Amino acid sequence: MFETIVWKKDKLLLIDQTLLPVEYKIIECHTVQEVWEAIKTLKVRGAPAIGIAGAFGAYLGVREINLDNYKEFSEKAFEILDYLWKCRPTAVNLHWALDSIAEIIKNSKNENIVKIKQKILQRAEFVLQEDRVLCRKIGENGEKFIKNNSVILTHCNAGGLATSGYGTALAVIYMAKEKGKKFKVFADETRPLLQGARLTAWELKQNNIDVTVICDNMAGHVIRDKGVDMVIVGADRITANGDTANKIGTYSVAVLAEKHKIPFYVAAPFSTFDFNLKTGADIPIEERDHNEIIKGLGKQIVPDGVNVYNPAFDVTPAELITGIITDKGVFRAPYEESLKNIK
Amino acid sequence: MFETIVWKKDKLLLIDQTLLPVEYKIIECHTVQEVWEAIKTLKVRGAPAIGIAGAFGAYLGVREINLDNYKEFSEKAFEILDYLWKCRPTAVNLHWALDSIAEIIKNSKNENIVKIKQKILQRAEFVLQEDRVLCRKIGENGEKFIKNNSVILTHCNAGGLATSGYGTALAVIYMAKEKGKKFKVFADETRPLLQGARLTAWELKQNNIDVTVICDNMAGHVIRDKGVDMVIVGADRITANGDTANKIGTYSVAVLAEKHKIPFYVAAPFSTFDFNLKTGADIPIEERDHNEIIKGLGKQIVPDGVNVYNPAFDVTPAELITGIITDKGVFRAPYEESLKNIK
Repeated sequence: MFETIVWKKDKLLLIDQTLLPVEYKIIECHTVQEVWEAIKTLKVRGAPAIGIAGAFGAYLGVREINLDNYKEFSEKAFEILDYLWKCRPTAVNLHWALDSIAEIIKNSKNENIVKIKQKILQRAEFVLQEDRVLCRKIGENGEKFIKNNSVILTHCNAGGLATSGYGTALAVIYMAKEKGKKFKVFADETRPLLQGARLTAWELKQNNIDVTVICDNMAGHVIRDKGVDMVIVGADRITANGDTANKIGTYSVAVLAEKHKIPFYVAAPFSTFDFNLKTGADIPIEERDHNEIIKGLGKQIVPDGVNVYNPAFDVTPAELITGIITDKGVFRAPYEESLKNIK
Repeated sequence: MFETIVWKKDKLLLIDQTLLPVEYKIIECHTVQEVWEAIKTLKVRGAPAIGIAGAFGAYLGVREINLDNYKEFSEKAFEILDYLWKCRPTAVNLHWALDSIAEIIKNSKNENIVKIKQKILQRAEFVLQEDRVLCRKIGENGEKFIKNNSVILTHCNAGGLATSGYGTALAVIYMAKEKGKKFKVFADETRPLLQGARLTAWELKQNNIDVTVICDNMAGHVIRDKGVDMVIVGADRITANGDTANKIGTYSVAVLAEKHKIPFYVAAPFSTFDFNLKTGADIPIEERDHNEIIKGLGKQIVPDGVNVYNPAFDVTPAELITGIITDKGVFRAPYEESLKNIK
């Protein structure tokens, strides 16, 4: 497997995912600003990977604070966490990683600053290692749902490139492959930024999996006429009732899966659950730059002066989700019930 | 209104639609080969426009035949019709226009060749004029379905650019606008060739209609959360039972309309019905060049060596269609019954 995120001595190495699939380039981040910019411009993307990058970004930021008074240090440090927090307002893993660092700072009033900085680095390294373990567990928990000789549809990229390891939705696929199962994958290209065509296709091919790219609008036709028997996607945020925010277009695929009576699985780290939110209606939908649609691929495709709408996510209601595959097990509707003993 | 197709003395003028929305350029076709190439490469597209261009293409072809023996002339002429026929295997209007020209040739055994050529030109001019009248009738028959202050979703381009006049689906919209109704249109960008973003948005804006472009995968989210209360699309081929072949992605939108209990209308000239075909299962689905997906926007978006699937059309079953709006009236399921007195 390729490595999406590597911490090397004093810098963070990332694959610049905006250049894939044509160019494979590693970028080096030495400052929090470089990490912020990498997250904002989707050089690193996918909820778990953003959380890991954010944690190392926080460390790169606090490392630069040359103050040995705790109060002054912590004020500066919280500014840095706030700066990173606002980079992607829907990214719960980012917030969760940053919160855990805020907690360390709050609980270290009596430590010296060098020690606090060390603890923050250790925390970032823990977030990275934990993600690798989680991805494998998600794969192990989900692979049983992939039947031999099946045809799978996925949307966007919930793969190794979205995490530090096997991915989430794609971890399930990689684990089924390791078990010797045969199957075929259709990957929605996933407009506007084409993470499916560029990233999912790239990493499935790297791992010798039979993958066919389609345009998003072909999903209905392909599910009906090409024998798709399962959909699996990732998640950016899941509310207490199981409603799931994921890349725009996920909801349309879920409706198509329901229409054709095939299972629709979400695979995500358990940390993607945000129990502060009751339902999908509470999830703020980030709107992104219109130029991603208008000129995202180099060529202007919308006439000057025409409106464009570019939501980053949509919400798939729990009742369309067959199961949520996590590192802590598989949950099913009604989710409040299914999750009761685990929280 | 702009003019999509103009016959001028001895040449055919077309808007090169592959250059829209950035460049507005008229191309001149002097030969059947030039028309064939314009149809094949989608410089001219949309079922009615292809039929008109094909008819003039046939004339441009037969004009060059320097034979005054009927048998030899008609052999050459049928070769030309066959050449054009095979250019777009799913385009029923093209076949219908060419068939009507074949009929003229067959019935002109005793005429001189100059006269036959004249008749073919007159036929092409009739196809053009008839289309203008048909478009207006479709608009008049359909505008009542657009309520004041409504929100409409359309897919691909079934507009003036797809015909010689008002269009089909968009004729309904233009006529509602002429009647003073207020409404808002969402246009699916329509991958891979982006006819919605490039063409529908261009012509709606030319006609001062409030239009917002979205990526195809946003349709579910927009129908549910942005108050869409009607879908209207064109058609490339409709079978005797009402099953409708239209641009890939139409079926997905129809499923989304059904899920959200909003009407889904097809608007097309009556000639789009192909009564030789019983159901959608009889419609051959044209597969197009993979590079339309891989490199269609200038930049390579799929890794080398990955499979791509690029069907040009999908079939929407009759039961998902609220009504088929034609120049001969509006038909509803069960279509065999509804169409009985009209064929």
